[in-house]
Amino acid sequence: MSNFEKTKSMFHLPDGMIYLDGNSLGPLPKATPAHVGDMLTKEWGDLLITGWNKADWMGQPGRVGDRVGKLIGAPAGSVVMGDTLSIKVYQAVASALEMRPDRKIVLSDNGNFPTDLYMVDGLLRSLDNGHSLQLANPEDVEDALSEDIAVLMLTEVDYRTGRKHDMKVLTEKAHALGILVIWDLAHSAGAVEVDLAGCDADFAVGCTYKYLNGGPGAPAFIYVATKHADRVRPALSGWMGHDSPFAFDLDYKAGAGIERMRVGTPPVIALTALESSLDIWDMVSMTDVRAKSIELCDLFIAEVEKRCPQLTLNSPRDGTQRGSQVTFKFDEGYAAMQALIDHGVVGDFRAPNNMRFGFTPLYIDEGEVVAAVDILVDVIEQKLWDKPQYKQRSRVT
Amino acid sequence: MSNFEKTKSMFHLPDGMIYLDGNSLGPLPKATPAHVGDMLTKEWGDLLITGWNKADWMGQPGRVGDRVGKLIGAPAGSVVMGDTLSIKVYQAVASALEMRPDRKIVLSDNGNFPTDLYMVDGLLRSLDNGHSLQLANPEDVEDALSEDIAVLMLTEVDYRTGRKHDMKVLTEKAHALGILVIWDLAHSAGAVEVDLAGCDADFAVGCTYKYLNGGPGAPAFIYVATKHADRVRPALSGWMGHDSPFAFDLDYKAGAGIERMRVGTPPVIALTALESSLDIWDMVSMTDVRAKSIELCDLFIAEVEKRCPQLTLNSPRDGTQRGSQVTFKFDEGYAAMQALIDHGVVGDFRAPNNMRFGFTPLYIDEGEVVAAVDILVDVIEQKLWDKPQYKQRSRVT
Repeated sequence: MSNFEKTKSMFHLPDGMIYLDGNSLGPLPKATPAHVGDMLTKEWGDLLITGWNKADWMGQPGRVGDRVGKLIGAPAGSVVMGDTLSIKVYQAVASALEMRPDRKIVLSDNGNFPTDLYMVDGLLRSLDNGHSLQLANPEDVEDALSEDIAVLMLTEVDYRTGRKHDMKVLTEKAHALGILVIWDLAHSAGAVEVDLAGCDADFAVGCTYKYLNGGPGAPAFIYVATKHADRVRPALSGWMGHDSPFAFDLDYKAGAGIERMRVGTPPVIALTALESSLDIWDMVSMTDVRAKSIELCDLFIAEVEKRCPQLTLNSPRDGTQRGSQVTFKFDEGYAAMQALIDHGVVGDFRAPNNMRFGFTPLYIDEGEVVAAVDILVDVIEQKLWDKPQYKQRSRVT
Repeated sequence: MSNFEKTKSMFHLPDGMIYLDGNSLGPLPKATPAHVGDMLTKEWGDLLITGWNKADWMGQPGRVGDRVGKLIGAPAGSVVMGDTLSIKVYQAVASALEMRPDRKIVLSDNGNFPTDLYMVDGLLRSLDNGHSLQLANPEDVEDALSEDIAVLMLTEVDYRTGRKHDMKVLTEKAHALGILVIWDLAHSAGAVEVDLAGCDADFAVGCTYKYLNGGPGAPAFIYVATKHADRVRPALSGWMGHDSPFAFDLDYKAGAGIERMRVGTPPVIALTALESSLDIWDMVSMTDVRAKSIELCDLFIAEVEKRCPQLTLNSPRDGTQRGSQVTFKFDEGYAAMQALIDHGVVGDFRAPNNMRFGFTPLYIDEGEVVAAVDILVDVIEQKLWDKPQYKQRSRVT
């Protein structure tokens, strides 16, 4: 059995479903229910409060953070888990702005995932100190860098198109202008090779419910470059980031290094669910995953372009410029995606007309890519999407 | 079987352990592992991304929030779940300060749980706009209220002593002076009768891993008075609080009412764990729980004072002035608590010398209270605490 056949056998994938939406919510590792069940009964149930020490729940955010760190080129002790990606974005931007008090601009791009922009907007309104959020087109970011900018905050992989920024080039150029750089790795961690230390990123944040298969609403992570970690102010300064949380001092004193980016009590059950997926990630190399992902995406693009001319590619054609997803434009994309899901191929839709498909080597293979296109061809050729039930919008699309 | 015998039978309590620490981490409801297991396999596993609609994960923070709301006198639609208590404190204080832009002081007391103070300290440093956090002694809070104060933030029940503030009196007095009031209900929800609507609180926050038995790191809740909910700015403005999260607009537009206090993707697994405990809470009335809690605490105080004169009560003697916990001072309290735990009675310790015991009618009865005192008497009389292994401090105490 090849390595990816092995990993595939470790996920629960419903019969008759080709799941091309692991870029939105990864599937359930078969080991997760028993692993979570054990934690619930043998740790919470039997150890109760002593679990914080005896099962070292207290160390879990750092322990799991180190495992995530391995997938994104972060050294041990530079990543910690907790909260949600939105919260971690806020924390990173607030902390970074304080490191450049002389500058007032946060630069991002208009392809960034909206919650990142909303969180910054909320932060800047609270600060009420002349800051502004400027948005460039993704392709114009490099030219928009200047010495007026305090913080560059970008999502490496565009959630709609899969277009990939060059982290190394942009970070280097930003640093040359004195700009701090925050990378959102929501669509990168477990999808592409990331080298946080190598590209000298200042901060990075990401979620674990997509390619890392931690389950719906799985905890986020934050990375702080080692050189900053002992001097950054965490902004969200909760007791778990305190130097001595159980001294119950009235005054805050930031903990050592990345520990200070912890905020409240760690989400033990959710982090435990994530551990089962990280066990699978331990079996593969990110280099192999990336190579296979490009193969799968290239195959999908070739098949769709050959057999489905009604759809227009809305992702970079060059695999090295793309994340682990492929998007095609189709005017009736919303209804077509609902029809496709109904016929067993699960992707998703992003306004205004993007049909989005994620390719995840841990559990998707070439056979499924071709089978998915077979069904897509049926949906498009036979206009299976042209039914009222497929056109009715649901709350989550 | 009485109602409390029934509820007691629904918790997993390890053989030979008398658990008097439900005020720190509630025990595992027997139904939780299967309920979480079902969610993992039948929802995440089988529905995958469609679970957001088909299992209405998207509505879970409000649905669970309404169930928590019933226990704290909050009307439907005024409570939402998510994040941690520290984050919700930050959100409430940041939002409240914006409603009183003409005032610069946040008042709290020096008995408040430190993370609340740390989060405010971090917020005020970020705002850097002349705000300050002032701390009064708990008994002096009423006299410290003035028209200079923007926000009064208090924890109703003191985490060390169980001393209870009068929410109604303090809220009324604060409002008369134009002060907004935030109540932290960490040690109140499921412990004492709370009437948020009746006392006209502006905001409230709390956690669910203590008396609400949601498990280690269970999600927090936030309450916003209906009169404010549609006009408050959420400060932590994440996409789940957006009016139309799946429109992916670049600009933030706050959602209706309490929904806007949502931030990131909801923690579905953790909220599911909490649901099993709320099923038990549905079986009892908070009035009965409170009456029984006072009985248990009174019994414990009477027994300890009769049989253990070495210990000094550090909680209000009047049950109506106390939460659902009792604290005794003892100079060797740390070691004595470790010895006590080793002998099957689990309470906890809070510096400098507080031995803390929680009494939770859902699963603790009179027989256990007396049995716990029997063991406590042994520990104290025979100086069982006087061993090196009990004196060595662990990370979490």
